[in-house]
Amino acid sequence: MMRLSQLDIEEQLKNLSGWSVVNEKLHKEFQFDSFNQAFGFMTRAAMEIEKMNHHPEWFNVYNRITVELTTHDAGGITKNDVNLAKILNSLAQ
Amino acid sequence: MMRLSQLDIEEQLKNLSGWSVVNEKLHKEFQFDSFNQAFGFMTRAAMEIEKMNHHPEWFNVYNRITVELTTHDAGGITKNDVNLAKILNSLAQ
Repeated sequence: MMRLSQLDIEEQLKNLSGWSVVNEKLHKEFQFDSFNQAFGFMTRAAMEIEKMNHHPEWFNVYNRITVELTTHDAGGITKNDVNLAKILNSLAQ
Repeated sequence: MMRLSQLDIEEQLKNLSGWSVVNEKLHKEFQFDSFNQAFGFMTRAAMEIEKMNHHPEWFNVYNRITVELTTHDAGGITKNDVNLAKILNSLAQ
């Protein structure tokens, strides 16, 4: 899995609503109506994460979740990160 | 719910294995054998958190979870934080 070029990432971001690059990681803040809703999202995400074996750095407090995605083995953002970002967007709807 | 005094907190910490005070919050890093184990802990914790309606600031990556507890309404650490810390220790075993 190779890290994406800056150009590739910019291209991918066009289809990744709410995501940006912060500190060389894909970054998004999700907000829900409640902790129940937020943790429900995390639980659905956890099953996909387990299947992909690709783990986000994520932070939760109450109804907010901040997610950062990078691929340590590749030293940057890869297609795996883009794929997980798409899945998270889909699960948050 | 009133914030605890420095002395109260030090007293409580004697019975809170692995917890310390960092940036005026109760702080602990949990480590598990896998993401599956770590997220299982978070799920069990989420149900208690929902019941208590008292929310941690917590960060997860792979098998590690960093938890910070404070009570914003009280401007510091309260008995609620101590109680949640005890529950989290119990659930992590």
